[in-house]
Amino acid sequence: MKDIRAKINDIAKRRGIFWGAYEIYGGVAGLYDYGPIGAMLKKNILDLWVEEFVFKDGLMLVDAPALGPEMVYRASGHLDKFSDYMVQCKSCGHAFRVDELLKDFVEVPDELTPQELEREIKRHGIRCPDCNGELGKVEEFHLMFSTRIGLDKIGFLRPETAQGIFVNFPTLYRINREKLPMGVAQIGRAYRNEISPRQGVLRQREFNMAEVELFIDPEAPFPENILDDIAIPLLTREGENIKISALEAYKSGLMVGYIAYYIARIFEFFKKLGIPEDRIRFRQHHRGELAHYSSDTWDCEILISRGWTEVTGISYRTSYDLERHMLHSGADMRAFRRFDEEREIEVTRIVPRMEILGPMFKGTAMKIARAMEEIEHYSGGELKVEVDGKTYTVPEEAFEVRKENKKVSGERFIPHVIEPSFGIDRIIYAILELTYYERPDSGYKVLRFPTKIAPMKVGVFPLMAKDGLDERARELLKTLRNSGIHAYYDESGSIGRRYARADEIGVPFCITVDYQSIEDETVTIRERDSTEQRRVPMKELPRLIRAMERDEVKFDELGTPVQ
Amino acid sequence: MKDIRAKINDIAKRRGIFWGAYEIYGGVAGLYDYGPIGAMLKKNILDLWVEEFVFKDGLMLVDAPALGPEMVYRASGHLDKFSDYMVQCKSCGHAFRVDELLKDFVEVPDELTPQELEREIKRHGIRCPDCNGELGKVEEFHLMFSTRIGLDKIGFLRPETAQGIFVNFPTLYRINREKLPMGVAQIGRAYRNEISPRQGVLRQREFNMAEVELFIDPEAPFPENILDDIAIPLLTREGENIKISALEAYKSGLMVGYIAYYIARIFEFFKKLGIPEDRIRFRQHHRGELAHYSSDTWDCEILISRGWTEVTGISYRTSYDLERHMLHSGADMRAFRRFDEEREIEVTRIVPRMEILGPMFKGTAMKIARAMEEIEHYSGGELKVEVDGKTYTVPEEAFEVRKENKKVSGERFIPHVIEPSFGIDRIIYAILELTYYERPDSGYKVLRFPTKIAPMKVGVFPLMAKDGLDERARELLKTLRNSGIHAYYDESGSIGRRYARADEIGVPFCITVDYQSIEDETVTIRERDSTEQRRVPMKELPRLIRAMERDEVKFDELGTPVQ
Repeated sequence: MKDIRAKINDIAKRRGIFWGAYEIYGGVAGLYDYGPIGAMLKKNILDLWVEEFVFKDGLMLVDAPALGPEMVYRASGHLDKFSDYMVQCKSCGHAFRVDELLKDFVEVPDELTPQELEREIKRHGIRCPDCNGELGKVEEFHLMFSTRIGLDKIGFLRPETAQGIFVNFPTLYRINREKLPMGVAQIGRAYRNEISPRQGVLRQREFNMAEVELFIDPEAPFPENILDDIAIPLLTREGENIKISALEAYKSGLMVGYIAYYIARIFEFFKKLGIPEDRIRFRQHHRGELAHYSSDTWDCEILISRGWTEVTGISYRTSYDLERHMLHSGADMRAFRRFDEEREIEVTRIVPRMEILGPMFKGTAMKIARAMEEIEHYSGGELKVEVDGKTYTVPEEAFEVRKENKKVSGERFIPHVIEPSFGIDRIIYAILELTYYERPDSGYKVLRFPTKIAPMKVGVFPLMAKDGLDERARELLKTLRNSGIHAYYDESGSIGRRYARADEIGVPFCITVDYQSIEDETVTIRERDSTEQRRVPMKELPRLIRAMERDEVKFDELGTPVQ
Repeated sequence: MKDIRAKINDIAKRRGIFWGAYEIYGGVAGLYDYGPIGAMLKKNILDLWVEEFVFKDGLMLVDAPALGPEMVYRASGHLDKFSDYMVQCKSCGHAFRVDELLKDFVEVPDELTPQELEREIKRHGIRCPDCNGELGKVEEFHLMFSTRIGLDKIGFLRPETAQGIFVNFPTLYRINREKLPMGVAQIGRAYRNEISPRQGVLRQREFNMAEVELFIDPEAPFPENILDDIAIPLLTREGENIKISALEAYKSGLMVGYIAYYIARIFEFFKKLGIPEDRIRFRQHHRGELAHYSSDTWDCEILISRGWTEVTGISYRTSYDLERHMLHSGADMRAFRRFDEEREIEVTRIVPRMEILGPMFKGTAMKIARAMEEIEHYSGGELKVEVDGKTYTVPEEAFEVRKENKKVSGERFIPHVIEPSFGIDRIIYAILELTYYERPDSGYKVLRFPTKIAPMKVGVFPLMAKDGLDERARELLKTLRNSGIHAYYDESGSIGRRYARADEIGVPFCITVDYQSIEDETVTIRERDSTEQRRVPMKELPRLIRAMERDEVKFDELGTPVQ
């Protein structure tokens, strides 16, 4: 199992997928670079994500800053709650996450207090994993990176992209013409100052996310017809492994409708990325595991060498975030729910007594009276009324309180939020492990990326770097590149060697310009997985490659087979 | 002129292009959100950028973290030199950039000392622009955002994406099979803690960049054939406005070859983005204006309402960055230059005297002798030699120094760098101003985005929301979305009103499903700029829209015109 990790890390470094950042300065734990293959793989995965989750459902894609002011993260709860328990070694000074140290001994360390955690460390005789030294006190360590904006404003790097959407709810709701459900998507970097990141690209301090915040009316009927009946592997909170469809999962009450919807969509998405079906499952969080904002969460996990690994979470965030921002900012974060028919509700009406208000407030009396009439809630005693920025106190005898019936067409409420949140770096790593393959005959390494996400689509090879084959190959390269296809040229070594180099970075198609090409303007195209070759007219290539990328044409429909 | 700015900001806020971030908390100067139209416009511009600058030239796209350790920015010179002079108002406490305050009085404020700047402020009687209060002392203000990584490591948010490429030069050069020129591209956020950002989206604290670092051998002959002869407007350092081709600019010695190359490419790119030719010019930096790393810089400027505005810079960074990183990290940042034919050079050879070394170092003598033979430079005196991690001092009498001739096939050198650096937010704003148009008849507002970058490609409208037209329109919407086309549905108000709404966010094509559609499966498609309509078969639409996006089919070649 460890073997595959070593192999992936070797290809990653050697061929330019990823490597530890700032290596020439000794590196910084938890920071990684994507090389030319990795960066393009990431771009292609995100482009497919946009097609699947933004275009198909007509969502709004937005882009907010990673830097945010303190108030936002005070409201979101991150300032108070976004921390891990840390322990430092008394000898070497290295810091460790307590839950990581205890994970083999305690089931849900998140539920314990610092004192209890310290006791567990002692009880199990846990010492420093690096130098075997004695461990110190358990301390809380805040996971947000802080900085200063301007001269003296405290700011943070976002720990999730979500808050950049929540704070914009009023604007987005207006742009969406006040309709729910409303889906808003965002792609971007997020930051967590991990105490001691030790799981390679799986736990980074700066990482790539793609998130959807789906705002819904929790009282609106759920449109069952958007759920399909493909069976999906689930692991419930009770530890049950079941395989049921999104529709059944919703109908049985196991999860709310939109979580079921996204589980099915995510299942399909990962299959498109080349993840085998039996490596995917959706696991429900234990109560103690839930983030501070969530009432239910299902993780999409993929089985890689280190076990089932979370790559996406679908959280039911309820109205938590919008409520908090409404409270902290004073902005109205509510949506409007229209009733099927008008309803009569009892309202409180304040009726000013002008005979008392007049002498009391003179020229301002009318304005005060009007402000009093606007008041909808009265809980007894005198009234405070604001007029032109000044507050006036109106005694009880200056007004009457009447209960009246009023017809209303709807009411305001705070929407609930369903959040599918994708960890892009983990998805990339899972794809690498699960598309990795060694040819049984030669042992040559292949990354079997689906064509759509393959970083480099085409390799162009002259059979020999002479007799005009090289020039013709370079011309073809230029044509492909000008058609928006990421292609490269290779004339070094045998064709077999060039295929092997291409396979290792998952190039789906290799084109060879040979002597026949000069005569009849055809070339051979070789498909990575089958290693089969077909002969096609050169001028058709840009169209055919784009069509194969979109799955509109299959490789074995091209031209004529080469024996 | 101010008028257009107000109009753009109005559409931007109302229709979801951009707005000030964190508005519900009073906003943070210099931070902006892109709404659904702006974020998709940005994505499309960047996708085109990748096609033009990465695919076409076969560059390597990489993706490095925005967070970096102190050492990197000490080496790059940013820690010392990346600052502005600031002055605070003694009354209201607001801070201002001194060069902004002095820009109408002093030609190149960057060349003055703090004392001279203070004198200039006094001499011209400049007071606080906000409250007219007295201004305080001129102070240096550092523009990088700092934070802590892990427990105690100082880190910065990158002020440019470039350093994430430079520090990886050895790895990238190896991946590129040690060939130059080598182009590496990166897209991402960068950060500058501006003292007092006051120019809207044009000066942001968190902004979007797209950069190319082209590593070249300064002694290699420049391939003139990559330059074309399209005339480009230039403004030289001497203040001369000229219009010459990239080829002439290079041949006349006005700029180095690769700067000329990129000037031509950038000129074409901006025209593709919808910027009129006469709004583009390339201006050479004055000496005092050059960044600390640059020996020559040409800015691409676009003429918008506030005047000629820098949107892209092309800097000749020489070997500055690689040299600095080599010095600070000790890593070898050199490339290898192969000579046309082998050359004889004089080398120093150390010849160990075993008769002295043997008794002196016993069992280690052979290893020490071998290490001495590796030494290429000798500047007199005793030698220090490292063997198995230990340092040995070898006295002068234990070796002979010979000068010998040696044949070498090449030499190591530090490559030079040409850097085109695109400010994506400014480009977006320029596109908005320069594609904005009001229909002469109706006064309706139109954003005439080129189809390729239009955020929303298609609006689908049922003529009436009844008689099955709405269902058929929704089916068509689904087909388009499943083909990867960003489309939306609108059934509200007259068709004219719906066209007007579409025009305002630059939708190039609007499709109407009418009664004829139910009969013969055709629809009308209306083009935004000409407002002409043509009738086409529904099932052809996904292919046709994709083809028009790629400029492979023109609108007036579609189906039949509607009178």
